[in-house]
Amino acid sequence: MSGWEANVRKVTPYIPGEQPDDADMIKLNTNENPYPPSPSASAVLGGMNGGRMRLYPDPDVRELKAALAEHFGIEPGQVFVGVGSDDVLATAFLTFFNGKKPVLFPDVTYSFYEVWAELFGIPYERPMLDDNFRIKKEDYLRENGGIVFPNPNAPTGVEMPLTDIEEIVAGNPGSVVIVDEAYVDFGAQSALPLIDKYDNLLVVQTFSKSRSMAGMRIGYAMGNKRLIGFLNDVRNSFNSYTMNRPAIAMGTAAVRDDDYFRMICQKIIDTRENTAVQLRRLGFHFEESKANFIFAAHRSVPAADLMQELRKRHIYVRYFPKGRTQNYLRITIGTPEQMERLFAALKEILGEEQA
Amino acid sequence: MSGWEANVRKVTPYIPGEQPDDADMIKLNTNENPYPPSPSASAVLGGMNGGRMRLYPDPDVRELKAALAEHFGIEPGQVFVGVGSDDVLATAFLTFFNGKKPVLFPDVTYSFYEVWAELFGIPYERPMLDDNFRIKKEDYLRENGGIVFPNPNAPTGVEMPLTDIEEIVAGNPGSVVIVDEAYVDFGAQSALPLIDKYDNLLVVQTFSKSRSMAGMRIGYAMGNKRLIGFLNDVRNSFNSYTMNRPAIAMGTAAVRDDDYFRMICQKIIDTRENTAVQLRRLGFHFEESKANFIFAAHRSVPAADLMQELRKRHIYVRYFPKGRTQNYLRITIGTPEQMERLFAALKEILGEEQA
Repeated sequence: MSGWEANVRKVTPYIPGEQPDDADMIKLNTNENPYPPSPSASAVLGGMNGGRMRLYPDPDVRELKAALAEHFGIEPGQVFVGVGSDDVLATAFLTFFNGKKPVLFPDVTYSFYEVWAELFGIPYERPMLDDNFRIKKEDYLRENGGIVFPNPNAPTGVEMPLTDIEEIVAGNPGSVVIVDEAYVDFGAQSALPLIDKYDNLLVVQTFSKSRSMAGMRIGYAMGNKRLIGFLNDVRNSFNSYTMNRPAIAMGTAAVRDDDYFRMICQKIIDTRENTAVQLRRLGFHFEESKANFIFAAHRSVPAADLMQELRKRHIYVRYFPKGRTQNYLRITIGTPEQMERLFAALKEILGEEQA
Repeated sequence: MSGWEANVRKVTPYIPGEQPDDADMIKLNTNENPYPPSPSASAVLGGMNGGRMRLYPDPDVRELKAALAEHFGIEPGQVFVGVGSDDVLATAFLTFFNGKKPVLFPDVTYSFYEVWAELFGIPYERPMLDDNFRIKKEDYLRENGGIVFPNPNAPTGVEMPLTDIEEIVAGNPGSVVIVDEAYVDFGAQSALPLIDKYDNLLVVQTFSKSRSMAGMRIGYAMGNKRLIGFLNDVRNSFNSYTMNRPAIAMGTAAVRDDDYFRMICQKIIDTRENTAVQLRRLGFHFEESKANFIFAAHRSVPAADLMQELRKRHIYVRYFPKGRTQNYLRITIGTPEQMERLFAALKEILGEEQA
């Protein structure tokens, strides 16, 4: 080991879902949207002037914040933006979870929470979901240094009732509570209306799922101005110019096209409901999902085997091979045609297995 | 104060140069390149398919790393990329400066170094430049937890000889030495050839200055594979997908157009040399600059007054109002025409002041 390695921060990084390069594939593994972004947003991208790239972007990202504020009926000073919701969440961990008491998040949840806690040396505890993959609100009404959970939860897709969320937020005036709403637009209820009532609530959303812009890297958080101000201070102590010009321009155009947004969300919800029926017929069981994925286990065939067999057929789903979730597959909702191909493949695989 | 504020990381953020929105302005305040990016890079941006934005980008950014590796004659595993060199440097501070001994950087230098040290709770000391704004290499040959300096230094523009840099790197096998080469392409000598010889050297560069792409946010670092591996681990513990699709595509195209890059760098060097002659004639003094700016003080008129008068004439320059630099202006090198307008304005202002 070289001498300098003693001073290195050593971490076990988050492992994102694979990004296979297979022209023929059906990619249901990273919860991307099967539909393109708003045509008006794509038009803005296509019309960008390369020459303008010589100039720094607006470090305050005013155009995008103003569009988001108008869309949600809040003030621009209540909006924070970052390079995807991971950047927003990482910055929020660094900003708000700076005490000595443990931060709380569920045992089965977005696996990046643990990675951020480890990165920044934040103590944490992971209360267990119940047997139906539900967050037990009482687990979050004890002493803590902060709280974070997704709603709907990932990778389960299970929604927590807004009344329970409000109890958690109201019961923790000494902690920031982060509700990670990456998947909220597919049918769950947002906690956004509570931000004016509770100054310790941060609501995080993303353009990567419901707005079809995973490739552009835009996330945002909403909360009271003082909370957002602290986030901005930390962000401006890390990197002043995080959002590049294409992200600001295309993101702004996407927010303004609400009709398109609602249309594709509804299509995905409809496809999800049909997928749920089909998967149950094929012998899968799962909790009701309010996300753009279904987290399902088969009654007889192990998830690892199913994943491998689907892979042979160029269908990619996500598998988390540990603990309570090791028999589950997280299946992103694609187009109806893609899901039909999935069902056909599953019939073939399950037929073979049962033979 | 709300209860949760006790757990907030409170920081004093970096303040970037202002980004005025003045159609008529001559913007010489944030060291942007006056020339557009490579036409082939702009063509790539203009040809982007908005529909593809629904998919995540490659988290490993292989295309851009391969182009940089080929350009510099190194391996892709020796390249790290981030959202501008600020993101790269912040990640490097977080990764490599994790000990208890003080990190060293000059008293007059890029002011973000102090902000990152404060953000991450890193102890630091700031050895003074000599009276000619030179880094004294002996100041960096004592016990430390890491070293960082720009070459050429900012905001002075002064180059440190590569032999001195090598002595610092060789003399500190127990520390990572970061050479921040944001401005190296305007005539200074890069430390890149030393990365195969010293495993503790990290060389950081950016697309924001010499490649005219400040608006796209691309920075990179080069070093031995083990060093780069630690950086990747920390980055992947913060945000897995930092580079969006337009940045990867346009960045790759820009690196491949070496002729254009060399041409615009040479134009800026030529303009800088002429600017130096003109500024001296107008009564300014400064050290020789190897950057795309000149850091100059006037023999009789205070910098603050000059800055205000230039501003009235829609010419923006940067002013750092404290300590040893409070009588200096940092003037970015623009086009020859922009500099002529600067000289004319200065003649007018200095004439008035002397009257």
